[in-house]
Amino acid sequence: MKNLLLTITVTMAISAPLRAAVVSEQVTYQDGDTQLIGHIYYDDGSSKKRPGVLVVHEWWGLDDYAKKRATMLAELGYVAFAADMYGAGKVTEHPDEAKEWMMVNAANVPGWRKRAELALQQLKLHPMTDVDKTAAIGYCFGGATVVELAYSGADLDGVASFHGSLPLPIEGETPDLKASLLLFHGYADPFLEKPHVALFKECLTALEADWEMVEYGGVMHSFTNPAADQHGMPALKYDAIADQRSWAQLQVFFAEIFAD
Amino acid sequence: MKNLLLTITVTMAISAPLRAAVVSEQVTYQDGDTQLIGHIYYDDGSSKKRPGVLVVHEWWGLDDYAKKRATMLAELGYVAFAADMYGAGKVTEHPDEAKEWMMVNAANVPGWRKRAELALQQLKLHPMTDVDKTAAIGYCFGGATVVELAYSGADLDGVASFHGSLPLPIEGETPDLKASLLLFHGYADPFLEKPHVALFKECLTALEADWEMVEYGGVMHSFTNPAADQHGMPALKYDAIADQRSWAQLQVFFAEIFAD
Repeated sequence: MKNLLLTITVTMAISAPLRAAVVSEQVTYQDGDTQLIGHIYYDDGSSKKRPGVLVVHEWWGLDDYAKKRATMLAELGYVAFAADMYGAGKVTEHPDEAKEWMMVNAANVPGWRKRAELALQQLKLHPMTDVDKTAAIGYCFGGATVVELAYSGADLDGVASFHGSLPLPIEGETPDLKASLLLFHGYADPFLEKPHVALFKECLTALEADWEMVEYGGVMHSFTNPAADQHGMPALKYDAIADQRSWAQLQVFFAEIFAD
Repeated sequence: MKNLLLTITVTMAISAPLRAAVVSEQVTYQDGDTQLIGHIYYDDGSSKKRPGVLVVHEWWGLDDYAKKRATMLAELGYVAFAADMYGAGKVTEHPDEAKEWMMVNAANVPGWRKRAELALQQLKLHPMTDVDKTAAIGYCFGGATVVELAYSGADLDGVASFHGSLPLPIEGETPDLKASLLLFHGYADPFLEKPHVALFKECLTALEADWEMVEYGGVMHSFTNPAADQHGMPALKYDAIADQRSWAQLQVFFAEIFAD
């Protein structure tokens, strides 16, 4: 059993001012005929291997928001790979288009998981990544993606979903989960019916998963994204407090799962 | 809006080795004819005022476990007051007796809240306490107690309940909550029916409370107490992971609510 060492987060926060800048590299990879364009971020002030974190975007595609989160993780001392789940790094600001792209993935769960695994491979292939310490986080569609990645039995210490749709396992499957799961959920998220959230918890419990869910009262969908309110969708609303809390709680989670 | 400064926790953790030892003082106070015997803990390496935390014991009474938590808070740089909710500092190891004592409190909610407020007064009266930065935490019966304290409108920045019974407001009352609420709950706690937990969340939401609940999968009642398994009650079970997680998450919460 791992000990939760808050001091890991501490050490990273303190040494930050001494570091060089975060650098990024474009990473092109393939899923069959589809070319995917991700971006990897790390602090080049040291060549030491470090824990790696996969970052999966919202339904909009690999936009600046997902890249910003990957940059923030690099600033915290991790190597972060912002995956491209749609191909060609395509993005949209139109909810209808975003939904359509997302549904294409969701309609083929094995293909969805495979594409996420290909991204995880890219993270692990990077020379900066300590392959024994990896996690995946995701937002909205990306939150669902990292849960699917956990269901696939991916070799990860943990996954964290922010306002994800909390997908259930495929009917009849009994996933062999290796990752601890941390789910951040806006209790007032209109996209998720309460019975579904309850069923999701029951399923994880039946799988004897190591899971924890943080529910924030009065908080809507996409609560971590400051641009959430700009799409004319009442279900989406940024919440600064829940954003800050979940980001801090993520760091506590990483300190635990990445402890030696 | 307060900013969540994880660095506060950080600073405290780092300066800890330089500090003098934690000292404790017995504090005798009254609730009508009932004499209460609490204990206050702080680090005497500095005379500077600091945030104050009320600690409310499990149904067993003010035992070594509650005192240990207060000591841990003092080590983190807080002043902590371990309250006595039963009078004369009495404790028991017998569940039947513990339940009886607890029910005496719970049967008279205004009296229950008043007794908790008297303890909070003692914390605020202490010269070490920064009265503008206070919180209350509690375990089991104590978790319910700090929620009642919040319902009473007590002047607190936050309350945190560990495996508490999540009491509802008094029928017809509309509490004026000043405290943010953080609830740690074992999802497999047999003492709490799931519909009750859901109703509790709905009530807090209706009150527009600032609340967050952390649910731990597969975790039973009294999960933070290493002695939980010694009472011959299958519902009580220590869980080291959930204990460590909730303690770390509490520190994140304190860093936020006690920020300048």
